[in-house]
Amino acid sequence: MYRNKNIKRTELSDLGEFGLIKRLTENLEIFNSSTLKGVGDDASVISNNGGEFLVSTDLLIEGIHFDLAYTPLKHLGYKAAVINFSDIAAMNAIPEQITVSIALSNRFSLEAVEELYEGIKLACNKYKVDLVGGDTSSSISGLFISITVIGRAKKEDITYRSGANINDLVLVSGDLGAAYFGLLLLKREKQVYQANPKIQPELVGYDYILQRQLKPEARTDIVKLLKEIDVKPTSMIDISDGLASEVLHICDASTKGVCIYEDKISINPETIKIADEFNIDPTLGALSGGEDYELLFTVSQKDFEKVKDQTDITIIGHITDASEGVNLISRSGSAVPITAQGWDAFMKNKG
Amino acid sequence: MYRNKNIKRTELSDLGEFGLIKRLTENLEIFNSSTLKGVGDDASVISNNGGEFLVSTDLLIEGIHFDLAYTPLKHLGYKAAVINFSDIAAMNAIPEQITVSIALSNRFSLEAVEELYEGIKLACNKYKVDLVGGDTSSSISGLFISITVIGRAKKEDITYRSGANINDLVLVSGDLGAAYFGLLLLKREKQVYQANPKIQPELVGYDYILQRQLKPEARTDIVKLLKEIDVKPTSMIDISDGLASEVLHICDASTKGVCIYEDKISINPETIKIADEFNIDPTLGALSGGEDYELLFTVSQKDFEKVKDQTDITIIGHITDASEGVNLISRSGSAVPITAQGWDAFMKNKG
Repeated sequence: MYRNKNIKRTELSDLGEFGLIKRLTENLEIFNSSTLKGVGDDASVISNNGGEFLVSTDLLIEGIHFDLAYTPLKHLGYKAAVINFSDIAAMNAIPEQITVSIALSNRFSLEAVEELYEGIKLACNKYKVDLVGGDTSSSISGLFISITVIGRAKKEDITYRSGANINDLVLVSGDLGAAYFGLLLLKREKQVYQANPKIQPELVGYDYILQRQLKPEARTDIVKLLKEIDVKPTSMIDISDGLASEVLHICDASTKGVCIYEDKISINPETIKIADEFNIDPTLGALSGGEDYELLFTVSQKDFEKVKDQTDITIIGHITDASEGVNLISRSGSAVPITAQGWDAFMKNKG
Repeated sequence: MYRNKNIKRTELSDLGEFGLIKRLTENLEIFNSSTLKGVGDDASVISNNGGEFLVSTDLLIEGIHFDLAYTPLKHLGYKAAVINFSDIAAMNAIPEQITVSIALSNRFSLEAVEELYEGIKLACNKYKVDLVGGDTSSSISGLFISITVIGRAKKEDITYRSGANINDLVLVSGDLGAAYFGLLLLKREKQVYQANPKIQPELVGYDYILQRQLKPEARTDIVKLLKEIDVKPTSMIDISDGLASEVLHICDASTKGVCIYEDKISINPETIKIADEFNIDPTLGALSGGEDYELLFTVSQKDFEKVKDQTDITIIGHITDASEGVNLISRSGSAVPITAQGWDAFMKNKG
């Protein structure tokens, strides 16, 4: 009853998520010396007399981030926790605590909420993370999960997006694109089921891509491995939105360019097989699919010998001067600019 | 499509919020020595080599916690931040950082989101708190705000709910009940407006109670005052759900009883006036209204001289042995048990 209806209206869809965050957080004043890093990386960094804390938060919203038609609640809980752990791994640190806030409508029973929490606790047990607090509430409709994760690190170990140097090697853990094709498969089988509920979903033989979509892992093992082999990455980010988007974040924050070699991107055979079924180039899935939660990072050339034979890390390119741009070198040898709409640009230039 | 429809179904409404939290967080394993306090207080306490961090999180959901028909977005943003600051104050500490996650439907424009953030930033500026991160997302419908707040404290200064001792004095900052009657007034005027949009809401003369509802403050000033006069509370909590509920939390966590004197509870004259209009006992508003965000705390008898003449603090009772129960001594001198449904019990016994 107090609203003025004549004010200017700009649609949020015109800005997109990154545009909105940028707009809302520009010119933020910092009052406390304990705030070492605010908005703009995978986690914020807060200092307390030499001990650094990393804090990150993620929202998961029904109908936007997940579909309960094909996401078991236990898997959802596991994934919600793990993708937060991944944000701390992306700072080259280990998660230690989470708070979990959930809002849900009366369509959910206690048993359903317990199933969700079982998944969260399973992830906490596996990663040795403590569930230390949270909030619960009703919602008018739908399920909302908001998790905040906290990790500790020594100041000198924290890796930001902004530290990549020219000639640094670009590395990725694991393989890419599988989670995206897992999602496409689940969506396809949901449609089949909706058309005829008597037909059972055909999910046999797709274990790997389904697991990558429904039960991803955070690569804290890579953080530990890098410490063991005494390599400190110069920059790091986790791959939640696809390789293209994350490469751009690193280049943007580091004001550098990059060459990524298409033939070096590791893609699982099962991913290649299903990509073929869907008639989609598997590289597109890797570049723009997202939800892989692998780590993308850069290391100095001097660390080449230490990283080159690690089984679950692949060197996919190198950092260049910003003037050379952000490029994918395709299998045919041509340089294709990687843009925020990575796969759009790639598709247009590929044929 | 994977759900078994024959599983047991327990309604969440049968447990209530506190019952649900208790159920979900029982038998939680703690893996990290950095976790000093998990679930069960206003904030969690995390340690890093001698520097302690406090973390708390709150959800605010449209249709449950606020009604945009009478809540300007700027006020909502301010309140969302402040009620989180209050959780850190309730641990006898000062908030320093927040992360803000919002999900909203396409009915909200950029200008609306900016108004919300203006309120959040206004609160951050006033309390010198840094906005260090967050997440934004679409929602299918409605506005969801999830804020996590972080504060620092020395281990020896942190005040838990569990520290109250027999004969400790029970104190409250400010006055109680105003925010509740502010809400009743706004709801009444909304109904009038809905019945006839030409009638302007009658809000003149109710400045105090409206401000208490729409623009509450966190009592970090009381935390600073207590430090100045060298008083460390033995227990503390903020009053978000009404005095009755918070007194019970302290008695429960401290395994003690309490005597609260009705005639000592500070209530603003404007609150008494509107309570009369609504024909509701103002003490009921103080006991069960909630959203006052004042601090309820206990101090040792030895600190009586230090606290007795502080203008914005009132001694309202004293801690007893658990066997004596949790009681309100009414104006007529009779002891009335305070229960979780504080005002129900009070009403039944009052007449």
